[in-house]
Amino acid sequence: MPNLLLGEFLGSVIFFAFGCGVVANVSLNKSKGNGGGPIVVYTGWAMGVILGVTVSLAIGNTGDLNCAVTFYKMLMGLYTVPLALSIMAVQILGGVLAGALVWLAYLPHWEATEDKATKLGVFCTSPAIRSYGANALCEFLVSTMLFLVFFSMGSKFVSGPNGFPSGFGTYMVGLCVWAVGLSFCGPTGYALNPCRDLGPRIAHAILPIAGKGDSDWAYSWVPVVAPIAGGGAAFVIAKALALI
Amino acid sequence: MPNLLLGEFLGSVIFFAFGCGVVANVSLNKSKGNGGGPIVVYTGWAMGVILGVTVSLAIGNTGDLNCAVTFYKMLMGLYTVPLALSIMAVQILGGVLAGALVWLAYLPHWEATEDKATKLGVFCTSPAIRSYGANALCEFLVSTMLFLVFFSMGSKFVSGPNGFPSGFGTYMVGLCVWAVGLSFCGPTGYALNPCRDLGPRIAHAILPIAGKGDSDWAYSWVPVVAPIAGGGAAFVIAKALALI
Amino acid sequence: MPNLLLGEFLGSVIFFAFGCGVVANVSLNKSKGNGGGPIVVYTGWAMGVILGVTVSLAIGNTGDLNCAVTFYKMLMGLYTVPLALSIMAVQILGGVLAGALVWLAYLPHWEATEDKATKLGVFCTSPAIRSYGANALCEFLVSTMLFLVFFSMGSKFVSGPNGFPSGFGTYMVGLCVWAVGLSFCGPTGYALNPCRDLGPRIAHAILPIAGKGDSDWAYSWVPVVAPIAGGGAAFVIAKALALI
Amino acid sequence: MPNLLLGEFLGSVIFFAFGCGVVANVSLNKSKGNGGGPIVVYTGWAMGVILGVTVSLAIGNTGDLNCAVTFYKMLMGLYTVPLALSIMAVQILGGVLAGALVWLAYLPHWEATEDKATKLGVFCTSPAIRSYGANALCEFLVSTMLFLVFFSMGSKFVSGPNGFPSGFGTYMVGLCVWAVGLSFCGPTGYALNPCRDLGPRIAHAILPIAGKGDSDWAYSWVPVVAPIAGGGAAFVIAKALALI
Repeated sequence: MPNLLLGEFLGSVIFFAFGCGVVANVSLNKSKGNGGGPIVVYTGWAMGVILGVTVSLAIGNTGDLNCAVTFYKMLMGLYTVPLALSIMAVQILGGVLAGALVWLAYLPHWEATEDKATKLGVFCTSPAIRSYGANALCEFLVSTMLFLVFFSMGSKFVSGPNGFPSGFGTYMVGLCVWAVGLSFCGPTGYALNPCRDLGPRIAHAILPIAGKGDSDWAYSWVPVVAPIAGGGAAFVIAKALALI
Repeated sequence: MPNLLLGEFLGSVIFFAFGCGVVANVSLNKSKGNGGGPIVVYTGWAMGVILGVTVSLAIGNTGDLNCAVTFYKMLMGLYTVPLALSIMAVQILGGVLAGALVWLAYLPHWEATEDKATKLGVFCTSPAIRSYGANALCEFLVSTMLFLVFFSMGSKFVSGPNGFPSGFGTYMVGLCVWAVGLSFCGPTGYALNPCRDLGPRIAHAILPIAGKGDSDWAYSWVPVVAPIAGGGAAFVIAKALALI
Repeated sequence: MPNLLLGEFLGSVIFFAFGCGVVANVSLNKSKGNGGGPIVVYTGWAMGVILGVTVSLAIGNTGDLNCAVTFYKMLMGLYTVPLALSIMAVQILGGVLAGALVWLAYLPHWEATEDKATKLGVFCTSPAIRSYGANALCEFLVSTMLFLVFFSMGSKFVSGPNGFPSGFGTYMVGLCVWAVGLSFCGPTGYALNPCRDLGPRIAHAILPIAGKGDSDWAYSWVPVVAPIAGGGAAFVIAKALALI
Repeated sequence: MPNLLLGEFLGSVIFFAFGCGVVANVSLNKSKGNGGGPIVVYTGWAMGVILGVTVSLAIGNTGDLNCAVTFYKMLMGLYTVPLALSIMAVQILGGVLAGALVWLAYLPHWEATEDKATKLGVFCTSPAIRSYGANALCEFLVSTMLFLVFFSMGSKFVSGPNGFPSGFGTYMVGLCVWAVGLSFCGPTGYALNPCRDLGPRIAHAILPIAGKGDSDWAYSWVPVVAPIAGGGAAFVIAKALALI
């Protein structure tokens, strides 16, 4: 149990540090990756999840790194309620520490960067066109698709003898995260995961980042509520299809 | 049987939603991926097919997601005619739903985008230089090459003990789709698949997309007829070579 | 034997068609991939070799697709001299047909492209700074490194039980080709393979390409001679190290 | 033993030649990859480590290619002190030869490139914003994360029957190097490895590179000291977590 929590914590640290780090690399002034563009961001997040899941698996033999995943594992009876809540807590704490690590690694670049939204964007998502209903709809639909793929990856046809070797789950999860970035970053920056957004947003709020603006708490419910709802929709579909 | 159809339907939804989604991401105004360029588009389509085949395999243990593939499986005796026609129908329906999902996920971006051709381009292919004969020739030649690779992937040397592990078929199909995008997107946008083009084109025609133009039905036969002909040519070559 | 030659022929067609195709996609006027940049080119060539080797393995259970590879397999006693010469001939013929396929697939784009060097560049390599000695040195050094990696991939530590699964050779070869493009495209466009350059150059010379210039035969010996010499150097090193 | 040293030497040559080569390709004047941007650089370094580890495994059955890795293997009792020092020496020598190979492969491009910092940047890292404390902190934190992932990859959950196949270590190391480039290139250019920086820096100092400037020895301690310290921190964490 402590190992499971440690694994989810350190896995989240790694995942979100690499994820927030790639946004810092392409967007902060004077960063060597400045202007590297969308392909760098999407690939960085995809590699980040592979590294984070690797650490989480190694330490605690899980690899959720997403509150919505943990939530539905609880509904499936794989976790007790207190355990699930503890996992979610350490995932969010991992996101806070990840934000702090990225702040430290890019320390001289915050003062070099004027735009406050750019600095916030390193930590958490924001809508391209602010419209809470449409933004939540996007996060809901894409989460539903993503979770349906996750549920499919565990099926007997996919991981069985004629399917993808089961050990490649980590790699496949990375490809899924690549896919959602490439195809659905556009409207909301693809949170798809409450702790990915909430943890680093808390870090942004509490850290003494040079010249930072506010943490846009008005938007913060969207990347928490919509992915859980989307996970729920995928859960219902996967149950109906006997995938789980 | 119902599972097979459900798998082809939902796999097509995922495949074409991620495929159309990546075009939306790089081309619609104010999208965060705007200007991400060709590498983003080609990688998005490649990941889309991996995710779609995963879902289709999980639910129905197929993964055609291409009317031309289904057509030649019917000729090979793997499907009865009514089954093949049903699969093609759900593939096209999947493309329609995929188009609708991308429309919804990018909802505020249609009004923000003025160019009608850009909006149509999210849903279906169009020629770079309109010349139906040359366009059909391109789709025919590239489909022939793509299908010859598909037929090769099933051979005993490739999937046998000294070859690529059979479970990596899904991944390899993704690499093939990456390859055709990278090398042959230029002239026609690489449809290579009737339902990839027809389904989302129908979605474009029937959805109330803000400020849309016409659906360019004059071109719509090319990405239907040429890939089937190309698949046929590859089928003849593969038969002659005893690959199938 | 006929299958081996057919496999090398069709594998070369696929390899070089995807390779020349990606250059056409990013460089010809009005091509949808125009301006896609170096990452598209390098990835396209890498996927091209994976697809070509797959076809060659499936039909003839080889996958040389490079005259220098065939030459050193002959020196290692794996091929008789007449067989090796036949394989090299079909590899070059495959390059010619590949060039023709790319010409046809991009048919309307040749007239739309004014620059003669751009058109030649679709088919064969040219030096960034013309200096035959330095150009040949570059092709020689990079070929030596590439072939040393190829020889390493067959060693017992790499392909044994604790190494890379042997079936991933095709994928690994793709990564090697990705690597040489990324790191050593700069000076000469990374031919590293006599038939990759010579076959499509012949196609450029004989095809009625709209508005083409000369085929730069003065440079054509560099990508033939230097890769064979580099392969030879790697062969000597690998022998000395008991890798082969 | 001689094979181990030969493997580390030639593996380092390949790794650092491809790594320095990709920087030359995107940054030297008239290079065909000039302007290819960050995604080319990060992918080139990632492929470079895969190729280098392959060669090192094939010849000597190791694949450290990083003085910090060798140092902590010594602390773990896997190497004697003299062996560890010998390995580090050949890794640095490999970096020198790699620098020389890149200088030769890009021979006509040094005179064509005016900027002295660009030329130095092909060989070794430099800070985006010079601030030795912050630069060392960045290299320390990122090395710690990278080494924690390396230690995790060896754990029983990751490489066991339900985990990533052990033979994919080489590929996974490549993905890790891709990840650190994508996410943490920004402040210091991600040395994360004493010999990657020191070896080619020595090459820059001793080679007759046309129009070169000084070799910035004032900064050279950062990419030596910080990665070793970061590896040490990861070592302590991994010990505490019973990962090793």
